Amino acid sequence: MLLTGQSIIAGTPTAGSGGTFTAVDPSTGAALGPEVSCLTPDEVALATRAAAESCTAYRSTTPTERAAFLEAIAEEIEALGDELLERAHAETALPLARLQGERARTCGQLRMFAGVVRQGDHLGVRIDSALPDRAPLPRPDLRLRQIALGPVAVFGASNFPLAFSTAGGDTASALAAGCPVVVKAHNAHPGTSELVGQAVARAAGRTQMPAGVFSLVFGLGNEVGMALVTDPRIHAVGFTGSRAGGLALVAAAAGRAQPIPVYAEMSSTNPVILLEGALTGDPTRLATAYLTSLTSGSGQFCTNPGLLFLPDGEAGDAFLAAVAEQAAQAAGQTMLTPQIRTAFGAGIERLGAHPSVRTIAQGVAGAGDNAPAPMVFATELTALAEDHGLTEEVFGAAGLVVRFGDVTRLAEHLADLAGQLTATIHATDADHEAAAVLVPVLETRVGRILFNGWPTGVEVTHAMVHGGPFPATSDARSTSVGSLAIERFQRPVCYQDVPASLLPQPVRDDNPWQLSRRIDGTVEPPQ
Amino acid sequence: MLLTGQSIIAGTPTAGSGGTFTAVDPSTGAALGPEVSCLTPDEVALATRAAAESCTAYRSTTPTERAAFLEAIAEEIEALGDELLERAHAETALPLARLQGERARTCGQLRMFAGVVRQGDHLGVRIDSALPDRAPLPRPDLRLRQIALGPVAVFGASNFPLAFSTAGGDTASALAAGCPVVVKAHNAHPGTSELVGQAVARAAGRTQMPAGVFSLVFGLGNEVGMALVTDPRIHAVGFTGSRAGGLALVAAAAGRAQPIPVYAEMSSTNPVILLEGALTGDPTRLATAYLTSLTSGSGQFCTNPGLLFLPDGEAGDAFLAAVAEQAAQAAGQTMLTPQIRTAFGAGIERLGAHPSVRTIAQGVAGAGDNAPAPMVFATELTALAEDHGLTEEVFGAAGLVVRFGDVTRLAEHLADLAGQLTATIHATDADHEAAAVLVPVLETRVGRILFNGWPTGVEVTHAMVHGGPFPATSDARSTSVGSLAIERFQRPVCYQDVPASLLPQPVRDDNPWQLSRRIDGTVEPPQ
Repeated sequence: MLLTGQSIIAGTPTAGSGGTFTAVDPSTGAALGPEVSCLTPDEVALATRAAAESCTAYRSTTPTERAAFLEAIAEEIEALGDELLERAHAETALPLARLQGERARTCGQLRMFAGVVRQGDHLGVRIDSALPDRAPLPRPDLRLRQIALGPVAVFGASNFPLAFSTAGGDTASALAAGCPVVVKAHNAHPGTSELVGQAVARAAGRTQMPAGVFSLVFGLGNEVGMALVTDPRIHAVGFTGSRAGGLALVAAAAGRAQPIPVYAEMSSTNPVILLEGALTGDPTRLATAYLTSLTSGSGQFCTNPGLLFLPDGEAGDAFLAAVAEQAAQAAGQTMLTPQIRTAFGAGIERLGAHPSVRTIAQGVAGAGDNAPAPMVFATELTALAEDHGLTEEVFGAAGLVVRFGDVTRLAEHLADLAGQLTATIHATDADHEAAAVLVPVLETRVGRILFNGWPTGVEVTHAMVHGGPFPATSDARSTSVGSLAIERFQRPVCYQDVPASLLPQPVRDDNPWQLSRRIDGTVEPPQ
Repeated sequence: MLLTGQSIIAGTPTAGSGGTFTAVDPSTGAALGPEVSCLTPDEVALATRAAAESCTAYRSTTPTERAAFLEAIAEEIEALGDELLERAHAETALPLARLQGERARTCGQLRMFAGVVRQGDHLGVRIDSALPDRAPLPRPDLRLRQIALGPVAVFGASNFPLAFSTAGGDTASALAAGCPVVVKAHNAHPGTSELVGQAVARAAGRTQMPAGVFSLVFGLGNEVGMALVTDPRIHAVGFTGSRAGGLALVAAAAGRAQPIPVYAEMSSTNPVILLEGALTGDPTRLATAYLTSLTSGSGQFCTNPGLLFLPDGEAGDAFLAAVAEQAAQAAGQTMLTPQIRTAFGAGIERLGAHPSVRTIAQGVAGAGDNAPAPMVFATELTALAEDHGLTEEVFGAAGLVVRFGDVTRLAEHLADLAGQLTATIHATDADHEAAAVLVPVLETRVGRILFNGWPTGVEVTHAMVHGGPFPATSDARSTSVGSLAIERFQRPVCYQDVPASLLPQPVRDDNPWQLSRRIDGTVEPPQ
């Protein structure tokens, strides 16, 4: 494939007049061509206008048509072959095996949403029969379906160049809901973005979608993103990234003449709690598992286990010793960008200099400037209560181990913790009484509770929740991973006494899409 | 029942130190005792603290327990008998028959939500089976349910002293979701609020709910409401009222350290479109139906048909003549408060003085200062395009008839209209081609589309949507009427590999609550 370094507006490569930049290999600092041509904030309207113009046609596609489009995107991404993986590897320094897995996840979730669209439960159809003889007044015929919100702006994430970028989870779920999408490419992987963007455009072309259903825009600084979020044609925003970035988008969206929802997945330290029983096993193995989760992908995961709560006492000491020993050998891996590496440096400096924090282990820096050594620190529960800043995310391979005395005190502390994507408990049967105290507390603080595992590695399924109370996300009522994510981009419309011939397909009496529908309060499968 | 004029905090009458006020009969201006004792903004924390303390116990109630509470509220409201209706009539001047209907609706929706809670579909349970043999990694066991968001602040509405106030739709749906509720009483009907508040407290007591599950607070000015919305223990807000009021709450909620959702139902002019065929019938009858919807309850409905689009030509002229004739006879009814009457006066003055607007009819003022004459104005489509202010809501019995030439131009205009709760089309079979042009446009602007009816009179059912794009509401993704309203006060939590004995009831293998659940992507009824 030929990289043009241009935005893709409704299927057409489009140069901008908003300056240029060049991708960088973070492991070497080498420039990766071509030069990328950026849009000005004004030029973003080319994409949003195309999205708005395609909106009625796209949201009116049948389940079969829309599912075919999603599946064609997966096929076109796969058809990019190794070129995509090699470019992504060059731009992100993420290992090829990881990128292979991420591509499978990306295509898998596109196909999952195709299945969701074909099945149609997301349309949430409800029909209340007319009661013409009801006294004192007859009841009208009422029919409800969910419709697409309108064009959606998606911001590519640095840490998932495939699964949470151009054709990632936000794009897939918005397209599945019937919303045209305008993606703001992440500048850390413009070539990867363009290759995938070309794939989406090709898929739209060969499945006869309106061209404006998808655009990919390049821009310098924050202005292009802000232009997108404040454009009146945009009706919702999907974002994965830093808290500062997410909050800026939330504020911009709230300040519009017509405010719109922002689904920003921002920051999380993903507490892991080791209970006594879990420490009676092999501390070395448990330490290995912890460090694997903490350091893989250079720790650049939203669900990285940044906080680990460890009981006081000998068993806890033994675990921490094992962590210290192994962490000292852990090799640094190249981070995604020099900026992320710098922020990581500032984060570990802040922890290292904290009077209540001691450094447990410093790993071994990797090659180049961007592969800092993994770090493990330790502190006490009382220190956390005194300084909530200690629980703030350090994006990268840095862990803070927090020693605690009893579970009741721990539960009190956890109840005060900022919102998180996940919380994990390691426990044996003997710990279940303690765990039973913690679970209801954690439910109020997180989107996912795990037992005896590690939070990294998010399954893309129907029951997944990748979300959680603020500041983990800007909207705890949703998930950005899994099939439930489609509901973020819909809203209900009711049809009252609308003549049969004017009713949309999903709510017609003959149920042409063979949907399960809630009839007078009870869900009925298609006849 | 004895009115104390005090807030009800967790079941206990509580005097405040935030000043006093006295209710007023809007038809006479007479004071209605007792004097009401207001809380200070600081004292509001008494209620929110009690709500927070009751939260875990309340959200853990079984469907049977929670449904019994909701049904007990309905019974206790009914047990208030005529005293409630008479007090509400005195405080609002709404006719007793209307209040009787509103009480039936209030109790009906409490019982509907009891049914929803017992059935349990709102828990949205999803279970993805573990795949221990999956390569390269096993898939964990994943289970999702919706949980209560936490304590909710509800603002009573002036125009529905029962159905959208103390134990109205917002309260009922929040309680059904498992959220404790703190109601800020509307100062236009404090006695009605207290009577209903006492009923809720009694119901909580006799069904053994934690006392903090419900509080009712009185306050002067906006400070008490603001204290409620900015209290960190409050997790969501339900509001029905003015756009200015709603936007102030939205801004306050967005400015919190932890932002929370606000469901504000604010303003709507509910366009009604008469197509040619609909005018071939009896213009007199159609005019009567229009004016009945426009003037009943003194026009104080969120769904009042403030805008009516009427074709140019003789049939339209005949309809407008019938409207003018009948409207001139229409009697003014007492409005809810002098403030609302003043705002109505300003609104009709603005319309009456507009250079592009002509007055079609002025009705007959009712008795007293607060019963202004109903008004009908007319203008042209081009005037609306020039001045969007013409489409802003005038709360009360005032209608603006807009003449239009062809449906294509009308559709263009409607696409530009601000978000609305409803849109109505009057059409015969001959108009279906024109209607088919309008429906997809209206879908993007409103929450409910009606044919050949009038928007006032909102059914409380499963398929109802009382919502719509901004500024009709602050969150188009929801409805404040009907069983779907419960979803506003929930968020999903996922349980990954959680031991069976620690799983919450709704997601356990033995399905003790006999729920329909989505298993591996397909909803299965209970075995």
